[in-house]
Amino acid sequence: MSRFRTPLLLSLLSAMALPPGTSRADGQPAAPAALAARRYRSAHEVQIVRELAELLSLPNRAADLADIERNAEAVAALYRRRGASVRLLRLPDTPPVVYAALDSPGARSTVTFYAHYDGQPVDPREWKTSPFSPVLLDRPLEAGGRELPLATAASPLDPEARLYARSASDDKAPIVGFAAALDALKAAGIPASVNLRFFFEGEEEAGSPHLEAILARYAADLRTDAWVLCDGPVHQSRRPQIFFGARGTTGLELTVYGPNHGLHSGHYGNWAPNPIVRLTHLIDAMRDERGRILIPGFENDVRPLGAAETRAIAEVPRVDDELEKELGFSESEDPASSLVALLHRPALNVRGISAGHVGAQAANVIVPEAKASIDFRLVPDQTPAGVRQRVEAFVRSRGYFVSAEAPDAATRAAHPKIARLEWEGGYPAARTGMDLPFSKAVITAAERALGGPVVKMPTLGGSIPMYLFQGAGKTPVVGVPIANHDNNQHSANENLRLRNLWDGIELYATLFAELGAR
Amino acid sequence: MSRFRTPLLLSLLSAMALPPGTSRADGQPAAPAALAARRYRSAHEVQIVRELAELLSLPNRAADLADIERNAEAVAALYRRRGASVRLLRLPDTPPVVYAALDSPGARSTVTFYAHYDGQPVDPREWKTSPFSPVLLDRPLEAGGRELPLATAASPLDPEARLYARSASDDKAPIVGFAAALDALKAAGIPASVNLRFFFEGEEEAGSPHLEAILARYAADLRTDAWVLCDGPVHQSRRPQIFFGARGTTGLELTVYGPNHGLHSGHYGNWAPNPIVRLTHLIDAMRDERGRILIPGFENDVRPLGAAETRAIAEVPRVDDELEKELGFSESEDPASSLVALLHRPALNVRGISAGHVGAQAANVIVPEAKASIDFRLVPDQTPAGVRQRVEAFVRSRGYFVSAEAPDAATRAAHPKIARLEWEGGYPAARTGMDLPFSKAVITAAERALGGPVVKMPTLGGSIPMYLFQGAGKTPVVGVPIANHDNNQHSANENLRLRNLWDGIELYATLFAELGAR
Repeated sequence: MSRFRTPLLLSLLSAMALPPGTSRADGQPAAPAALAARRYRSAHEVQIVRELAELLSLPNRAADLADIERNAEAVAALYRRRGASVRLLRLPDTPPVVYAALDSPGARSTVTFYAHYDGQPVDPREWKTSPFSPVLLDRPLEAGGRELPLATAASPLDPEARLYARSASDDKAPIVGFAAALDALKAAGIPASVNLRFFFEGEEEAGSPHLEAILARYAADLRTDAWVLCDGPVHQSRRPQIFFGARGTTGLELTVYGPNHGLHSGHYGNWAPNPIVRLTHLIDAMRDERGRILIPGFENDVRPLGAAETRAIAEVPRVDDELEKELGFSESEDPASSLVALLHRPALNVRGISAGHVGAQAANVIVPEAKASIDFRLVPDQTPAGVRQRVEAFVRSRGYFVSAEAPDAATRAAHPKIARLEWEGGYPAARTGMDLPFSKAVITAAERALGGPVVKMPTLGGSIPMYLFQGAGKTPVVGVPIANHDNNQHSANENLRLRNLWDGIELYATLFAELGAR
Repeated sequence: MSRFRTPLLLSLLSAMALPPGTSRADGQPAAPAALAARRYRSAHEVQIVRELAELLSLPNRAADLADIERNAEAVAALYRRRGASVRLLRLPDTPPVVYAALDSPGARSTVTFYAHYDGQPVDPREWKTSPFSPVLLDRPLEAGGRELPLATAASPLDPEARLYARSASDDKAPIVGFAAALDALKAAGIPASVNLRFFFEGEEEAGSPHLEAILARYAADLRTDAWVLCDGPVHQSRRPQIFFGARGTTGLELTVYGPNHGLHSGHYGNWAPNPIVRLTHLIDAMRDERGRILIPGFENDVRPLGAAETRAIAEVPRVDDELEKELGFSESEDPASSLVALLHRPALNVRGISAGHVGAQAANVIVPEAKASIDFRLVPDQTPAGVRQRVEAFVRSRGYFVSAEAPDAATRAAHPKIARLEWEGGYPAARTGMDLPFSKAVITAAERALGGPVVKMPTLGGSIPMYLFQGAGKTPVVGVPIANHDNNQHSANENLRLRNLWDGIELYATLFAELGAR
C-alpha cells in the first residue's frame, strides 16, 4: 500500500492483532469461477506457495536496481508462462514496470490490475526468520508457530499457516494470486470476461517517484477501462474490503519566531515573546483536542457523501473498541464518531513539533523559533492549493505576517508576529463513485466470490495517488486488497496468512470471469 | 553570574549593545575613598590592567582541575601580597574556594565579598582574539577596535578601551578590582570600616554543585554579618545597579501520551488521540501568549512588594524599547508592563518542546508521546514544592491522571488522559529587604562613590542561589556587579570596558571604607 513520503510508517496496520480466529463471512462461493479456483487451489496448495516462495527469495528493495531487475524478470517469466504478452516499461535509472497483457476473445472491455513487486528495506537483526528465505509456520510467530518445511509439505495446508518473508503480503501475494487465478480458470475452461492487463510497479515503497511519468510516457499503451489496485490489507475485522477512494495529502512546515537569538529565561522570561507558546496557541486555534478543524471554510470544498457511500459507511463493521484496547488508549479524538466516519473527513495531524530542548539538554532559555510539522488528509473535492489558501488566510487572521522565507531584520522590525509557512506539494483526494457500473460489478463479483458481504470503504484513510490512475477523473479505480491486516507490513517478520491468499485467488478468479459479464 | 543547570546560556545579556557612549551618572564622587581610588587608579591604570591580564592568561574551566589549581594559587597570591590571611577551602575533587581575610582594627562587623575565578568553556574558533591571551582594544571589536599593546601602553588609558579575554568581566574583574581598591585605600591611609572577607568560588560556571556543601562544611569559618555578591553586569542603561534578590527556579519535564506506538496518520488521523495537540492545549491552559500564568492559585504565595521595592522599580531606567529593537521583536509578551515590573513576577517559560520530527525527517504519523520542558522563575515567597503542588493539581483538573512514571498498559487502560510530570529540584527565590540597615548602607556608600543614583533592583530576573548565602534568612545578601552589560559574557569575545573597572574600584573602595561607618 502506497504512502506519500515515508512508506515505512504504513507498517502500523500490521500491529493490530485482532483474534486470529475472526474470519471472513463464511458463505459458500456463488460464483463458478470461485468454486473452480477453490478446486484448483485445493489440489495445488503446495505448488502455489512454492511459486510465491521462489519470488520472495529475491531481495527487492527499489534502490537496488540489479536486484530489482531480477525481480522484474521473474515476474515477467511468471506471466509469460501463462501466455501473456509481457513488456518492461522503462524510464532511465528507474525500476521497470512489468506490464502483462492477456486478451480474451470476445471481451469488450479492458481492466488493469495493479500490484508492486518491490518491497520495504529490511533490517535482518529485527527478523526472527531470514527476510529472503521464506519460511512457512503453522501459526503466527507470536503464537509459537512451528515450521512446515516447504520441501516436504503436503496438501491440505492449514489455512491459518503463515508464510514469513519480506513482501509476502506487500505486495507479491497478489502477483502470484493473479497467476493462480489464471491457472484455475484455464483448468476449468472458464474464459476471462475482460481483456486483462497487469501493471506491476517496481518502486512503490520508494514513494512511486516515477509513476506519473511512466503513466504519461506509456499512456497510449496503458489505455484501460478501469483499474483495480491490489495492495494493502483487508479490513481489521478480517473481512475483505473494497475501497473506492483514498484521501489526498499535503504537508506544512510552520515556524514562528521570538527574539533573534536565545535569551536567558530569567532576565527576559515573561517579557520577551516565547515562540513555543505562540506556536501552541496557533495550533490550538487550528484544531481542537478532538480532531475538529477550526479553520474557517476549511471544509467548504468537501463533497458530501452520496447515498451509496453513506450506506456503506454505516455497514462497515465497527472495530473501534478493540482497536482502542490494542493501541493502548481509551478515548479516541472524537468519541462521538466512529473510525470509519472520521476517515471520511479531512484531518489535520500535527506530526512533529520542535523547539529548544527537552530532557537533559533543556536550557533555561527563550528560544528564537519554534517549528511544527503538519500533515493534512484531504477528502474529495479538497485540493492542496485550497488547503494552503485557507490555512494562510487563517494564520494571517491571527495577526501573523505570513512568509515562505525566514524573516530578516527588516521584516522582524515591521511585524510583531511572523509565521513562516513552507508547503509540500501533495496531491488531491480521489474517489470512484460506488454507483458506477464498474464499481457495482466489482462489488457483485466480490460478494459472489465470497458468498457474503464485503466491507465497502468509500475512502481509505490513507493516501494513494489514485488520481494518477483516474487520469482526468474518467477512469474508475477501485482497490481490492487481500493481505491479512496483521501482516507486519513494512516491519520485521512480514507474513501472509494462507487463508487470505486462498480467498484472494477465488476473488481474483471471479473478477476475471465476471467483471465483463453482461 | 550564576545560572542553574546551563550556565552557557547566561550569555544573553552580552548581546545587548546599547550605544557605547551611554554612561553612568557622571557626578563627582562624594566619598573620600572613591576620590582616593580615582587618584590611585589614575596613577596605576596600566599596572592594574596588567595584573588582571596576568590572571586572565590562566585557562579556568571548572572541570580542568589542574588549571583551576593554578588559578586558585594566583588568586591566593594576589591577596597574600595585600597582607590577607588566605586559605583554600576544599572538598574532595572540587575546585577550592579561595578565602581571604583582612581584619580591620576597631571594625565591629564582617562583610564577605563574593566573586568566582572559574570561567565558561571557550571555543577558540569563535573568538577573534585568543581567549587566554588578553588583548586591549581602544574600542569594541564591532566598532573596529585597534590593539593597545599592554607592554608599551601608558596612562591615561582610554576608558572606552576594552580588555578581551575569557573571564575579563565574568568574573575576574572584581577579584582584581577589590585588590586595587585595597591598594588605593592603603595608599591614602584610609582604613576599612569592616572586617573584610573574600570568598572566591571555583566552579560557579559549572552550576556551583558543591557550594551548599562548602558553606556547610566551613560554616564556622565563614561567619559573616553580610554578603556582597560581585558577579554579573550593571544595568543595560550602563548605570551601576545593586540587586537585593534573585528569582528562584524549578523545572518540569511534561509528557503526555497518545497511542502506544506510532500510527499511520491516514488510517488513524482524526480518530486516534494526538499527544502533540493534547500537549499544546495543556500548555495554553497554563499560560497565555502574553506570559500570564493561568494556573489557579499559582501566585498565592507571592509576597507583595514593599514600599521601598515599588519605589525602586519605578525608578529603574526604562530600556524596553531599545532592547526590543536590539533583540529583533516588536511586541513583548505583555506590552502593558515594563521588563523590570515583569521580572518581579513569577514566570512560566516553555524552554523546549519535542515530539515526532519536523523538516525533512517528518513522517505522516500520530506519535505516541509529546514532551515539553518548562522552567519556572519564582519570586518570594514561592517555593519549588508549592509550584509543584499547584501545577499537578491543575493538570489533574484538566482530566489527566498524573504520574512521575511512564504509564504501563494497565495505567493506559485505566485512564483516558495521562501526564507524566518529572520535576527538577530547584530552589526558592530570595530577597534581602531594601530597608535593612545593611541594604541602606550599601546604597548610601554606592551613591556616595558614584556621585549619583544607582539602579536599585529589588529582584534580579535570573536565578542565583542567594538563599544559600542568606543561611536561615538572617544574613543580608546584596549584589553589586560592575561589568559592562555588553560584555559577551559566556560567549566568544568576552570583554571588560575599562570604565566599568575604574568605576568598580571606586565603588568597592567606598564599600570597604564606609559600610561599617556609624
